[in-house]
Amino acid sequence: MRQAGRYLPEYRELRGSVDILETCRRPEQVVELTLQPLRRMPLDAAILFSDIMVPLAAIGVPVRIEAGRGPTLDEPIRDAAGVARLRGLDPEADEPHVSEAIRLLVKELEVPLIGFSGAPFTLASYLIEGGPSRTFARTKALMYGEPAVFERLLGALADIVVAHLLAQLDAGVHAVQLFDSWVGALDRDDYRRFVFPHTARVFEGIAGTDVPAIHFGVGTGHLLDLMRDAGGDAFGVDHRVPLDDAWATIGHDRAIQGNLDPAVLLGPWGPVEQKARDVLARAGDRAGHVFNLGHGVLPDTPVAHLQRLVDLVHSNTERGGS
Amino acid sequence: MRQAGRYLPEYRELRGSVDILETCRRPEQVVELTLQPLRRMPLDAAILFSDIMVPLAAIGVPVRIEAGRGPTLDEPIRDAAGVARLRGLDPEADEPHVSEAIRLLVKELEVPLIGFSGAPFTLASYLIEGGPSRTFARTKALMYGEPAVFERLLGALADIVVAHLLAQLDAGVHAVQLFDSWVGALDRDDYRRFVFPHTARVFEGIAGTDVPAIHFGVGTGHLLDLMRDAGGDAFGVDHRVPLDDAWATIGHDRAIQGNLDPAVLLGPWGPVEQKARDVLARAGDRAGHVFNLGHGVLPDTPVAHLQRLVDLVHSNTERGGS
Repeated sequence: MRQAGRYLPEYRELRGSVDILETCRRPEQVVELTLQPLRRMPLDAAILFSDIMVPLAAIGVPVRIEAGRGPTLDEPIRDAAGVARLRGLDPEADEPHVSEAIRLLVKELEVPLIGFSGAPFTLASYLIEGGPSRTFARTKALMYGEPAVFERLLGALADIVVAHLLAQLDAGVHAVQLFDSWVGALDRDDYRRFVFPHTARVFEGIAGTDVPAIHFGVGTGHLLDLMRDAGGDAFGVDHRVPLDDAWATIGHDRAIQGNLDPAVLLGPWGPVEQKARDVLARAGDRAGHVFNLGHGVLPDTPVAHLQRLVDLVHSNTERGGS
Repeated sequence: MRQAGRYLPEYRELRGSVDILETCRRPEQVVELTLQPLRRMPLDAAILFSDIMVPLAAIGVPVRIEAGRGPTLDEPIRDAAGVARLRGLDPEADEPHVSEAIRLLVKELEVPLIGFSGAPFTLASYLIEGGPSRTFARTKALMYGEPAVFERLLGALADIVVAHLLAQLDAGVHAVQLFDSWVGALDRDDYRRFVFPHTARVFEGIAGTDVPAIHFGVGTGHLLDLMRDAGGDAFGVDHRVPLDDAWATIGHDRAIQGNLDPAVLLGPWGPVEQKARDVLARAGDRAGHVFNLGHGVLPDTPVAHLQRLVDLVHSNTERGGS
């Protein structure tokens, strides 16, 4: 069950109006923000409080997280010179606060800790667009217009992602998740050519660590078999694709994570229960289903719904099927 | 081939900074804006210059189109009282400029004229969100939280859409397109329950007119069979789903429209040609493929690319296969 504490009043109180990237540099706050949801609900795992832009900010990319908008760059990266300015990530020197927070957390936690990273394509889309996008027009313009530059960018990001994930694994996380949130904007041919090699390299880069890796995207129903081949032990899918269909495409030798629509939690309990039971029914008795939302918890989500949902899932998965 | 003239300098000159809804009330300008792309390219059809918010503005909904953002309402509709304030559309009284522009156009045009409307769900999403959205959180909150209100809203919108389309058909358009652009945000169950009945009613409402109706959405690969059952003679699909797969799902007894990614046109010609040829190859020799972009033309698209694309498609479809 994925949790971002922004729906909790105690989260908003602790965070205040500080940029999230600044908060991520304060290990004691990261520990507290990671623990907050667990004090509210008996979750099966904790997710490291962080942001996909953390490793990029750590190497000096001038990115900030604007409230209500997301990652924002005043000077997006759109040419060879911009890509050349990206340097490699040395986690010990550049982001020691990440490892420190993880070491503190694993001492305190009684459940596994999940670390994460943005995937090369999704990180690149923010760097190129300068913010969130619906069309990914500039990302694709660079991809088609200067494929060598685009591939260099994804290659550089893949190196950064591997270093970022290895540092988290080294510090003690028990699983990692790779967020390729926006890769569903691509067609299969472009995924194969422009994304697959770099995502595959990320999974190869952490392959020796023997820790489960989750590969996540939104609106990726048309890419699931390719994403599976790129790598990962478990696959996060959103509500658009029925869980059983998605699992059949991925193959039952891999695990699946999902896929309740987070927006359902903004309504009354009835539809939440109905749709959660539908997800569980589609997962069936098979081992390897991680019940989760299809995407992040939305800001106005009632905490009581989440608590009730956790209880519902626990009381319906006693046989270890999910 | 869908065309919105915003990529043309002569379009930007004529439009100036006037709200698009105001421009839509000036039949002479609508005629000119509709004809502009045809003067540049030998297109097979003309698309009426309009906006999906036209019929809602015509009944007094205080909506404006913000440049770079889209339809914007300062007071979104989120409760029964808001829905109750929506009145029916009387095209003759409320939007005579629409029919007038169409009558002027069909006299001038040598190719068919395509009219259009937003679909009930997509219109509702703008009314409820107050603007564009990535999560459709408030739309879904109303849908799950007050399903009766939501269904009344979609019912009222279906009536408005039918009136708007019938007026266009009466004035002489040769085909109509129903844009359910954002319905891909829903899962299959919700589509079936909340959208299907109202969309089906729209197609039933215009069924007597014997004019082809196109049913369009973005990211609807998981809904295509349901959308087909809701109605339409042709189905618009975007680049996410391979055209041959989409057509097989819809069935070859219906026509298909698509599906070049408009973002490809922002790069060099090579990938445009390659992807356009791939679309044509996937359509094969079968009758009933309308070559089109998967979504609207993006603002910075080079006109020369569009011209070359039209020529490419024409020179490769002599056998009437597409």
